[in-house]
Amino acid sequence: MTMNKQWVLASRPTGEPTPENWRLVESPVPPLADGQVLVRHHFLSLDPYMRGRMNEGRSYAQPQPLDAVMIGGTVGEVIESRHEKFAAGDHVVGMGGWQQYAVVDGGAAGMLRKVDTTRVPMSAYLGTVGMPGVTAWVGLTEIIAPKAGETVVVSAASGAVGGVVGQLAKARGCRAVGIAGGRDKCTYVVDELGFDACIDYKAHPDAKSLNAALKAAAPQGIDGYFENVGGRILDAVMLRMNAFGRIAFCGMIAGYNGEPIPMANPSLILVSRLKLQGFIVSEHMPLWPKALDELGAGVATRRLKYRETVAAGIESAPEAFLGLLKGRNFGKQLVKLT
Amino acid sequence: MTMNKQWVLASRPTGEPTPENWRLVESPVPPLADGQVLVRHHFLSLDPYMRGRMNEGRSYAQPQPLDAVMIGGTVGEVIESRHEKFAAGDHVVGMGGWQQYAVVDGGAAGMLRKVDTTRVPMSAYLGTVGMPGVTAWVGLTEIIAPKAGETVVVSAASGAVGGVVGQLAKARGCRAVGIAGGRDKCTYVVDELGFDACIDYKAHPDAKSLNAALKAAAPQGIDGYFENVGGRILDAVMLRMNAFGRIAFCGMIAGYNGEPIPMANPSLILVSRLKLQGFIVSEHMPLWPKALDELGAGVATRRLKYRETVAAGIESAPEAFLGLLKGRNFGKQLVKLT
Repeated sequence: MTMNKQWVLASRPTGEPTPENWRLVESPVPPLADGQVLVRHHFLSLDPYMRGRMNEGRSYAQPQPLDAVMIGGTVGEVIESRHEKFAAGDHVVGMGGWQQYAVVDGGAAGMLRKVDTTRVPMSAYLGTVGMPGVTAWVGLTEIIAPKAGETVVVSAASGAVGGVVGQLAKARGCRAVGIAGGRDKCTYVVDELGFDACIDYKAHPDAKSLNAALKAAAPQGIDGYFENVGGRILDAVMLRMNAFGRIAFCGMIAGYNGEPIPMANPSLILVSRLKLQGFIVSEHMPLWPKALDELGAGVATRRLKYRETVAAGIESAPEAFLGLLKGRNFGKQLVKLT
Repeated sequence: MTMNKQWVLASRPTGEPTPENWRLVESPVPPLADGQVLVRHHFLSLDPYMRGRMNEGRSYAQPQPLDAVMIGGTVGEVIESRHEKFAAGDHVVGMGGWQQYAVVDGGAAGMLRKVDTTRVPMSAYLGTVGMPGVTAWVGLTEIIAPKAGETVVVSAASGAVGGVVGQLAKARGCRAVGIAGGRDKCTYVVDELGFDACIDYKAHPDAKSLNAALKAAAPQGIDGYFENVGGRILDAVMLRMNAFGRIAFCGMIAGYNGEPIPMANPSLILVSRLKLQGFIVSEHMPLWPKALDELGAGVATRRLKYRETVAAGIESAPEAFLGLLKGRNFGKQLVKLT
């Protein structure tokens, strides 16, 4: 009998989450019913949106239920199938959650998707060729819609989403400017990912210094901003936005822990005729195939670069997730489950 | 010799403007050169955007120069013309400024426009069938783009822009909710302009009370918001916005006097997938003819209603303008110059 280790949400955080918010449970994998597929997870994806799901309050999605397996994207291999669309040995992406195995209804729309791992590594389907990559693609092409010659800024630039935003912007003839925490991340963003510049926000703890750094990195002003963090970085970027600039709101980690963080000067929306738009990638399903085509080709040909931080074993998931929220990861944060 | 009284900007305000920021001067109307037109102004329009022009700082427009005639929309009658397109007796709209007469280059694009006053009163070309009306039309149709059955909220609802926003929204099958200062204004917004509801923000000085009033007035949530004021009203409306709501930023009087007023909870942009967009009506010139068609027809047939507050004489312009900034006007603020 195969045993399955699972992390369930034990309690909701008050302020910063702690490891005690989760509980590790173990139970046998049940036998398959007709139409079901058993997947062994190779990788679990850890993503900032999970922090929002831990809260009870109003958000764009249902809260993660207590005592249920924590939500999460997974990639793995079909071990056993009682659905005609899948066979043992298939590599599949799904929302399997924080657990080693998942029993999935093979016929449910969008639950399980076969992927080709001959030219794209399995783990990339959780990153550049998965939800984070499509998030970058949708925010950049649909909301920022940059023209060649414009300047695009992205925060959390060394992360799974931000790194793709800048590389796609470069491919469209833009100046790409990253914002990241620490010199190592900035070096990576410029030297490996090919951004034109990267600002280490930790080296600019005050507004005046951060504003000056942005002015130096984006001397023609900013036309598009891909917002991953909120707070003082958003305030600084808004001051440098050109007329008719576009800001795609993808994540606001800075505000996840309860206290809303204000926007200092919303009158700039009028003064600079800005467009600010929030989006959730799962609400743009018709765009996924086109996005995945470009992203998959980019990874297969090694034009699109990325890094991964891989934690070992299901047991490590909570600590790895808390590290992600603090920016301790470098590139896409994964947990290897095999 | 005809004398012309003019208000020039004497100094820039520090904080709230005062009458001393302007200086009244008088000088003879110069003789016309070839191609010029002499207009006697019947009405001067006073509008919130003028407050922004008094500042030196970065804005969407050049600051009003010191010691020059204060900018302003005007409607009047051609007294003498040395341009073939205009004849004495023509009624014309222009940007004649805070003065009794203007000498205008008849050939300059967009400087002077003949208007038909047989079915539309002359003053309406400064209000519902002029810049404020087109502002309402552009923000509503281009940014909010409401569908029948949706709820549209507008602040400064009894004003020249806000009153049109709500009436146009009603004509498109929406629920129209106004926000205005005082019971009289709210009664007017509902009983005369035909809004479904109006909230007197002065009766709701705290956030909790204002939120409850919004919930009662917009029980299905808010799909579109036409933003004229900023500050705590914006914060309250954002909390009630439905997913995929649109906010058109037209004016933010609350922040004109120097200190930027923060937006309390920008993470709602992401949570509710909102679109916030600032716009300036003069940057949407291709839309004016279509807008003016609907607005002119609405006034001519008395379907579109409005009120005016008319100050008497050029001398009254500064006090009337300061009153406008404090919300003392009722509907469109004009100065009658004849």
